[in-house]
Amino acid sequence: MSMKTDIEIAREANKIHIRDVAAKLDIPEAELRQYGHDKAKLSQDFINSIQSKPDGKLVLVTAISPTPAGEGKTTTSVGLNDGLNRIGKKSVVCLREPSLGPCFGMKGGAAGGGKAQVIPMEDINLHFTGDFHAISAAHNLLSALIDNHINWGNELGIDVRRIAWRRVVDMNDRALRHIVASMGGLGNGYPRETGFDITVASEIMAIFCLAKDFDDLQVRLGNIIVGYTRDKAAIRAKDLNADGAMTVLLKDAFMPNLVQTLENNPAFIHGGPFANIAHGCNSVIATKTALKLADYVVTEAGFGADLGAEKFFDIKCRKAGLSPEAVVIVATVRALKMHGGVAKDALSTENVDAVKKGAENLVRHIGNVKKFGVPVVVGINHFIADTEAEIDAVKAIASEQGVKAITCKHWALGSEGTADLATEVVRVIEGENAQFAPLYPDDMPLLDKVKTIATSLYGASDVAADSKVRSQLKEWEAAGFGHLPVCIAKTQYSFSTDAKLMGAPTGHVIPVREVRLSAGAEFVVVVCGEIMTMPGLPRVPAANHIKLDTQGQIEGLF
Amino acid sequence: MSMKTDIEIAREANKIHIRDVAAKLDIPEAELRQYGHDKAKLSQDFINSIQSKPDGKLVLVTAISPTPAGEGKTTTSVGLNDGLNRIGKKSVVCLREPSLGPCFGMKGGAAGGGKAQVIPMEDINLHFTGDFHAISAAHNLLSALIDNHINWGNELGIDVRRIAWRRVVDMNDRALRHIVASMGGLGNGYPRETGFDITVASEIMAIFCLAKDFDDLQVRLGNIIVGYTRDKAAIRAKDLNADGAMTVLLKDAFMPNLVQTLENNPAFIHGGPFANIAHGCNSVIATKTALKLADYVVTEAGFGADLGAEKFFDIKCRKAGLSPEAVVIVATVRALKMHGGVAKDALSTENVDAVKKGAENLVRHIGNVKKFGVPVVVGINHFIADTEAEIDAVKAIASEQGVKAITCKHWALGSEGTADLATEVVRVIEGENAQFAPLYPDDMPLLDKVKTIATSLYGASDVAADSKVRSQLKEWEAAGFGHLPVCIAKTQYSFSTDAKLMGAPTGHVIPVREVRLSAGAEFVVVVCGEIMTMPGLPRVPAANHIKLDTQGQIEGLF
Repeated sequence: MSMKTDIEIAREANKIHIRDVAAKLDIPEAELRQYGHDKAKLSQDFINSIQSKPDGKLVLVTAISPTPAGEGKTTTSVGLNDGLNRIGKKSVVCLREPSLGPCFGMKGGAAGGGKAQVIPMEDINLHFTGDFHAISAAHNLLSALIDNHINWGNELGIDVRRIAWRRVVDMNDRALRHIVASMGGLGNGYPRETGFDITVASEIMAIFCLAKDFDDLQVRLGNIIVGYTRDKAAIRAKDLNADGAMTVLLKDAFMPNLVQTLENNPAFIHGGPFANIAHGCNSVIATKTALKLADYVVTEAGFGADLGAEKFFDIKCRKAGLSPEAVVIVATVRALKMHGGVAKDALSTENVDAVKKGAENLVRHIGNVKKFGVPVVVGINHFIADTEAEIDAVKAIASEQGVKAITCKHWALGSEGTADLATEVVRVIEGENAQFAPLYPDDMPLLDKVKTIATSLYGASDVAADSKVRSQLKEWEAAGFGHLPVCIAKTQYSFSTDAKLMGAPTGHVIPVREVRLSAGAEFVVVVCGEIMTMPGLPRVPAANHIKLDTQGQIEGLF
Repeated sequence: MSMKTDIEIAREANKIHIRDVAAKLDIPEAELRQYGHDKAKLSQDFINSIQSKPDGKLVLVTAISPTPAGEGKTTTSVGLNDGLNRIGKKSVVCLREPSLGPCFGMKGGAAGGGKAQVIPMEDINLHFTGDFHAISAAHNLLSALIDNHINWGNELGIDVRRIAWRRVVDMNDRALRHIVASMGGLGNGYPRETGFDITVASEIMAIFCLAKDFDDLQVRLGNIIVGYTRDKAAIRAKDLNADGAMTVLLKDAFMPNLVQTLENNPAFIHGGPFANIAHGCNSVIATKTALKLADYVVTEAGFGADLGAEKFFDIKCRKAGLSPEAVVIVATVRALKMHGGVAKDALSTENVDAVKKGAENLVRHIGNVKKFGVPVVVGINHFIADTEAEIDAVKAIASEQGVKAITCKHWALGSEGTADLATEVVRVIEGENAQFAPLYPDDMPLLDKVKTIATSLYGASDVAADSKVRSQLKEWEAAGFGHLPVCIAKTQYSFSTDAKLMGAPTGHVIPVREVRLSAGAEFVVVVCGEIMTMPGLPRVPAANHIKLDTQGQIEGLF
């Protein structure tokens, strides 16, 4: 097993020119908008030209409830894609773009790991092709237009106390969470409280990832509710004539980004909405384009299956008309042991009982995914300390649920380690007939949608919402927003709203703290607990150690 | 004469692939980092590889004091480059990158006009290759690190009342000029007053444009003074360990951008610092790289020659060791008439007397440029209503100053209209021996530098500075900053600080309002009048009318 770091492995990759990656999907070089030799966007004309092609098979990679031990969802997605290509299938992986700001907080990076990575990882983790910068600019243009409108007379009668639209920056900057703006006198407008979120939390990021085409993008941007009048009438971005210019700012960003895995297989990396106040999946346009170009498309969704897969199904697939044909739930022996009560520093000791106990979390997720009518495969992301007995325990438990658990060694071996998983995924798709359906119908009342998710998937006994929340939801239903899906924002660490309640809790109540209408993204955010939309930096930020080395390579980022 | 709009002309251009533009400068395709088919960055390795080549001849295009009638400095720079290529010279034009924010205020664009444009103009005016976004990110990372350091205990003892580093956004957003940040309680840090500037006003933009290489870039970034302790000891970016990560964020941006003119001649567009609180020229790395690749390099500097050319000479050329060989001063008959007292709506009527009177502005600029030891050519940027008698008057006045004034018709005719100008520029370079020297020596006291500029170039009798300013300059001299050049920030419309005083005023006093130390950019900003570092949007912003048309092309931007 390689003891090299991810970045060392990535730099040793036998990277091919992006035109040769594109050629694997029959994309002509002229249809690429290259960004250097190793990144490209696909032209809108090309995307339009392939619409009559049949769709490939869509596979979602999701995971058990995350623990500090890690699961490796992105890594497994990349590994499965390499595995599918290895067994002769034409496959593409579709991933989210990572956010810039957090790179300067904790050492990290979100481009897979070991021998299952997408490259160029430095670029992907930094500015990449500029998509997030374009989203920030579109967001902040709308912000500037709101205050400008008020400054010049406020013809629309925007109530400055009821402005819902903040500003964004792709940086972890806690000082901007809550500010007083327009200070300093007459020329600077009317002082008011507001703040900044990190760019991935922008509703524009969610819209960008759900829009089908430019027309849909502009309509959704126009529908953003930026605030209300004193009479609580909604003011939308289109009332400020902002939608056209915002769409123009997103013109290039909206084209999907093509890169490659370490094994030179194609990967689309496009869009990256927050997985709590948004739906946490890459762009619809990337996924749909990939489906036209490959026989298999592997994608992932943020957090565990309770949040990520549910939103993938109920928001993205429902709205984009996608029908996933298989789901891989990633688990690790280490994480199952944590769910079974083992402390982080004791994870390297064999503990079959803890694996079995913790597997109740896995079992719940398997059952949940099946409720959407999609067959499941469990991927055991192998760690060196895992024992045969522990792995067998996971396999046996999966088997009781009627699904196969396959050991994956992509981190150490690349596609050689995921050929079995790929084979099982293909078998399941060809042998079992997925009958995907969302969990709840469009016309269910909003609070009932929350209850359905909480009771069917989270094991909760009920949902608690005070009268303010209930009447807000009723108002939105009366205003024609009742048909929207709900987007639950809760801790990813538990089926409950208590992050410490691991495993598979039952009988708990899900308290709804607040609801937010994303009228452009077309969902209602249901906030169940603290959510942070602007992270801070730690005491010793990673930025302290990031620099160019004497060869001009980036040091300290990973 | 074409009555097409700039954007119509640009869209009809016979654009060639950027690799073919690069081939004209013998840049191998492998050394390009393509951004689509029509933009590319040059690799740092390639730049390193050409350092032993001889330098071409550097030509500055500057102008008379600007008026609402317009002069066409960028257009003439592009036209001269096309003209030089037309007469068989290998020439490149080096321009500044335009700022995104102002595009949403006034309809505009900064990529030339008529048949003298650089393309793709939409991209150049919007995100281009992402350089400004990278500069914003580097700037705001430092901002976040300052407040983060204070939040975690403020080990360096930064006085929160003495923080000099603000935040930036590339958007005209007056609401952010003056804010109170870190509101909202314990988790968000210590509340304090601060604000945002537009990205082009960032000291990082100036540093980016003056740095010779990555090492110099990192040193300068580290030297930025972000604030002071209670004892007025300077805190620098390097004290926060921010310089490495900031350099990493600028890694790709620092490579010069190659595009083409409408006539397929090469153009570098790289960097774009404010021409008031900074020096207003494109990057040193682009200019120096161009000099290694071509026989002639045409470049421009912001505002009129009193600000633009002076800073180009005294800051950029002095610091980068550049020796310009000729200067073109752009004038228009219309603008000279405005300097001669004609109102904007009467400019189309022949008025030779007003031309002669207004030409005192041109005469002052000619004399000023000669003080730097560089020969001058006047470029009369031709407008359709100009009469023979008016043009002859300009030529006669130039001739009295010992320089030729050449009529240029690049707007209507492209290079056919600038062949004469190009021929004269070549003649002057070959015939007259430029003996470039900055206006003042490094070791002159800071206030004397200001006085030298004011009395030699502005026609002022003196400089007024109160004791606070004087003692601040003395303090900086004692701290070792006395050798820095000064960067005057005053109105561009007059040699005085009164924007309405056109022509060539004398005997006025230049009041110094404030001084600022740009320790990373390595100059002292001398503020003489109001300077706005965050513009606002007008009552009806251009954004209202910007959108994609049915063909997916941008409408309303120009």
